Amino acid sequence: MSTVNNVKRPHIVVVGAGFGGAKVAQSFADKNVDVTVVDRHNFHLFQPLLYQVSTACLSPEEIAYPIRAFFRKHKNVNFHLGEVEDFDLDNKTIITTTGNITYDYLVMAAGATTNFFGMKTVEENSFAMKTLDESIIIRNHVLNMVEAASRETDSEKRKQLLTFVCVGGGPTGVEEAGSLSELMYNVMRQEYHNLDLNEVDIKLIEATDKVLPMMPESLRDSTVKTLRRKKVDVRLETQVMDYDGNFLTFKSGEVVPTKTVIWAAGVKAVPIAAKMGVEMDRAGRVIINEYLQLPNRPEVFAIGDMAHFLQDGRPLATIAPVATQQAAVCVNNIFSDMSGQPMKTFHYEDVGSMATIGRGDAVMCKGSMKFDGFIAWFAWMLIHLLRLAGFHTNVTVVLKWIWNYFSDTRLGRIITR
Amino acid sequence: MSTVNNVKRPHIVVVGAGFGGAKVAQSFADKNVDVTVVDRHNFHLFQPLLYQVSTACLSPEEIAYPIRAFFRKHKNVNFHLGEVEDFDLDNKTIITTTGNITYDYLVMAAGATTNFFGMKTVEENSFAMKTLDESIIIRNHVLNMVEAASRETDSEKRKQLLTFVCVGGGPTGVEEAGSLSELMYNVMRQEYHNLDLNEVDIKLIEATDKVLPMMPESLRDSTVKTLRRKKVDVRLETQVMDYDGNFLTFKSGEVVPTKTVIWAAGVKAVPIAAKMGVEMDRAGRVIINEYLQLPNRPEVFAIGDMAHFLQDGRPLATIAPVATQQAAVCVNNIFSDMSGQPMKTFHYEDVGSMATIGRGDAVMCKGSMKFDGFIAWFAWMLIHLLRLAGFHTNVTVVLKWIWNYFSDTRLGRIITR
Repeated sequence: MSTVNNVKRPHIVVVGAGFGGAKVAQSFADKNVDVTVVDRHNFHLFQPLLYQVSTACLSPEEIAYPIRAFFRKHKNVNFHLGEVEDFDLDNKTIITTTGNITYDYLVMAAGATTNFFGMKTVEENSFAMKTLDESIIIRNHVLNMVEAASRETDSEKRKQLLTFVCVGGGPTGVEEAGSLSELMYNVMRQEYHNLDLNEVDIKLIEATDKVLPMMPESLRDSTVKTLRRKKVDVRLETQVMDYDGNFLTFKSGEVVPTKTVIWAAGVKAVPIAAKMGVEMDRAGRVIINEYLQLPNRPEVFAIGDMAHFLQDGRPLATIAPVATQQAAVCVNNIFSDMSGQPMKTFHYEDVGSMATIGRGDAVMCKGSMKFDGFIAWFAWMLIHLLRLAGFHTNVTVVLKWIWNYFSDTRLGRIITR
Repeated sequence: MSTVNNVKRPHIVVVGAGFGGAKVAQSFADKNVDVTVVDRHNFHLFQPLLYQVSTACLSPEEIAYPIRAFFRKHKNVNFHLGEVEDFDLDNKTIITTTGNITYDYLVMAAGATTNFFGMKTVEENSFAMKTLDESIIIRNHVLNMVEAASRETDSEKRKQLLTFVCVGGGPTGVEEAGSLSELMYNVMRQEYHNLDLNEVDIKLIEATDKVLPMMPESLRDSTVKTLRRKKVDVRLETQVMDYDGNFLTFKSGEVVPTKTVIWAAGVKAVPIAAKMGVEMDRAGRVIINEYLQLPNRPEVFAIGDMAHFLQDGRPLATIAPVATQQAAVCVNNIFSDMSGQPMKTFHYEDVGSMATIGRGDAVMCKGSMKFDGFIAWFAWMLIHLLRLAGFHTNVTVVLKWIWNYFSDTRLGRIITR
């Protein structure tokens, strides 16, 4: 409890400023509580557009919003830059890399990280794409590969430099492969006068028999068709076994020479989840009760990608709408607890799902409704713009998207570091 | 010579895609020559706005333009990513980190780097600001310092974290100090609810008795007055002796506790200039003749910040207008040489100089004309926009400047890496 004007107010600590955590903190703004937001980055990241940074459509600043800017006018919300290292739940304390913080209520919304499923060689040599830094690293690497290819006279080595493999047929893999195709065949083909960009080979590798498993079959089929029209080599039922940085080996024994493997095949909860002392699922997510609390810790809530919530016999997917809906119920339940009212049980309302495949092409579905092509892409664009934090960011993103749409250029195409 | 349609065309190699090199290459576009642009970065950098990246006004992509994008429609101009390591001038060959390139004409326009005047401790512990990466490093560091201060309970340590020292009273130092002042006192003061940003101390250190030495006295005075109004502690006739990363020592013996020293006190030619085998000045610049050639190497030209050109008994300053005017004469002289015509001698026409001190405040002069305040700032803004490469970049920069002007915010305020 902190003391303001001699009145003790509950101190709510929110760990993670993603979609879930940011919404929790915003809901407590100007209420009769003190809030501390803890994050290892000083910005809220709009993760669904990471693939656009990695393919030079947008600049990193356009999908990152300073956390403190959310709370400029809300003096009861503070920010603490640091990473949670451990918990002392009995003493209601979190231990961070930059100091300890005590709480009355703790909301854990620290999200997920890339899951390599124990494949060490793949983890060491392929690229993850869950953080802003990782997406910048991919951008620099991809641009460097094409530059190296433009100087390479050995055709086998050149082919290896120009082979880009995305692993995982979920939205991230599909979007990355589609965007890479446009970067290579529309934008860069015009600018390498001494290199034939038709030598580029973009592969999308999926272990199961389908891409975008949450979509109905007709949209899955149209997605594969669109990707293939964009010259993406879509491989279903293909499992990665090994990758040494130069050669990617599938379970079938096939070997693909490539310097670029982008791993979007799975996520798991952030490792810190394991230190909360509660039961976890196979993806390391903490299993929460119907009120989103840890069992036996009524003052500790967990939401979003790091939480396992069972609904209709299945855990909910790790997607933004689950996190934001949980944030609302979490805030409600903390207020209820403070005032001695009964809490609400959480129930996820499906908002549908969508994925963009490229310029003017997307798929979306909700219940029995389904769209593809330009109308789905237009809806995708509107929805993402409405969700992007911050007015200014929207304006430049709109401009950049319009500009990219009509001009076949990508101005974010710079190699830093 | 390369062979196109069995006709040998002269091969012109341009090293460096700054203001000088980019203009040379652009002037040869679609002419009857082959051009290779060599640069260690894949982008042209708008150096005059580096200070805006370092203070989170603009994002890095807004002042960096992909070199290949300049030559998309000009198939006779190619780009080679690499850094020149050595020369074999007798065999008309440059040796780069990514392969050797032969030329018929060589234009060296590789620019300048930071000059620490042999002060090792200063070089190791302070921040230079000549490259895009360096300006991003400064941005990350400055933002981290304020975050660390917000968690620091020891007031002496906090003071050290919040002391920012710019060394060098030229345009870069003045602009950096003014922009830091606005970042701290206008933007960040609103967002740190538990930190008094009045504890911030920004110092501008200059060894001589004046800032902006190219300006008339009245503008120099108004610059110092404006900076002091912005709470910048301007120190003239103050020499830096030593800096260990925590304490900055002046020649007077005074010690300033600070974690941030931004060094903008001098430039010297890039080190590769020393390998050209010709006479150099104290700043390592190669001494060129009146046609901008190396003495005894009529096929090798040097222009811009790495070249020493004597005019009216004094070497020209290392500023963009010198480089671009030299680029035009260099191109003319190469064409003249190819056609057996006499070359032109170079003469720099003064275009005046300007520096911005902050929002709505700048100084500019040309000949006997001089302006300060809002009108100079407005002119500064227009001129920089007109020069910024690429239409799209202009639009977002204009929007961002307008937005920053009216809203006291800076959206580039993210810590990467």
